Amino acid sequence: MSQQARAIETRAAIIRGAAEAFEQRGYGSTSLAQVSAAAGVTKGALYFHFDSKEALAVAIIDAQHEKSVGAGRALLDHNVPGLRALVSMSYELARQLRDDLIVSAGVRLTIEAVNFSTPVSAPYLDWMVACEEFLRRGIADGDVAPTVDVPAAARFFTAGFTGVQVVSDVLTRRGDIDQRLTEMWSLMLPGLVAPERWDDLKNLAVEVQRERSRPQP
Amino acid sequence: MSQQARAIETRAAIIRGAAEAFEQRGYGSTSLAQVSAAAGVTKGALYFHFDSKEALAVAIIDAQHEKSVGAGRALLDHNVPGLRALVSMSYELARQLRDDLIVSAGVRLTIEAVNFSTPVSAPYLDWMVACEEFLRRGIADGDVAPTVDVPAAARFFTAGFTGVQVVSDVLTRRGDIDQRLTEMWSLMLPGLVAPERWDDLKNLAVEVQRERSRPQP
Repeated sequence: MSQQARAIETRAAIIRGAAEAFEQRGYGSTSLAQVSAAAGVTKGALYFHFDSKEALAVAIIDAQHEKSVGAGRALLDHNVPGLRALVSMSYELARQLRDDLIVSAGVRLTIEAVNFSTPVSAPYLDWMVACEEFLRRGIADGDVAPTVDVPAAARFFTAGFTGVQVVSDVLTRRGDIDQRLTEMWSLMLPGLVAPERWDDLKNLAVEVQRERSRPQP
Repeated sequence: MSQQARAIETRAAIIRGAAEAFEQRGYGSTSLAQVSAAAGVTKGALYFHFDSKEALAVAIIDAQHEKSVGAGRALLDHNVPGLRALVSMSYELARQLRDDLIVSAGVRLTIEAVNFSTPVSAPYLDWMVACEEFLRRGIADGDVAPTVDVPAAARFFTAGFTGVQVVSDVLTRRGDIDQRLTEMWSLMLPGLVAPERWDDLKNLAVEVQRERSRPQP
């Protein structure tokens, strides 16, 4: 293995180890000694790649954000109707939160980052922009009412999803997140859907949740 | 001053000092030495009242929760219609978050508490119960559609509010929270209001926000 390949591997191991340690104890209560132990690298190697605990947290947030934005991008590229894509994306993010340690740690760190030297706002702002794109496509599709205030709805979707996963994390370690998302949509869809499309779309979230839970071929 | 009165005063000073320290640096990054410095008490006095950092955080969460629940209780006692009371409560909580250090620190600690030895779920569960009461009264008033799934709506209100204040905290240190709440309501009201009451209630949140911003006599 080349020296460069080894450096990339070490960096990835540090990020995984740090995600594990932060996820277990929370950001503030985790020491860099615990991170290097969890990653199986020396403190020297750790400092070679990251010069502070905050830099490490920001790297996890970036890695998570890349994965989550990738999921949204894939839906936009597949020509799924805008509103259905937005609903699907919420369940896909929930799946990542349950199954992927980097995503789970990254989202938790984003929330704790209010105390960082530089608050981490990019993930929220990027999600708002992505949601606006889904909603505008939904309006073009005729599914979303053209009267909807798109930036306001995108902001509230981002905040609402954030809250749903925080509360689900505290109460059930995210075990009930799909069910809670379906409840979120049943309350948000009436404010989004074009009246003439209501009969077709009122069960959209239940349908998407059911489809996703079917075994994939 | 009696010994008991002094003890009560010291305890309150510790809670205020701890709230200040946690609010500035986050829970995990705050040491008990920083708390005793912020509270102006010795470490001995601190340990006399609280036997761990977590016990201190839980005391702040309890103090915050009492204040916030008190605001909800006052609205229920004043015979305000249920839906209007729920909307008013959300702005009152936002005001407490902006103006009251104990509330602000308590809410932030509740979110960080996912890493505590005992996760703090009581505030979320109590809010869900309170919201159910507001919504049931709203149905009795004829304002809320009787078809609304009351426990689901109460869960989503609690999660949605949580997310709105988290995102507002990160992006603007809660400077835009009232405006973001009004957006939340404009998206949630269509899923809650009885169709025959829509014309009267569609601007409810804007009205409540405006009323509250008027100087009080």
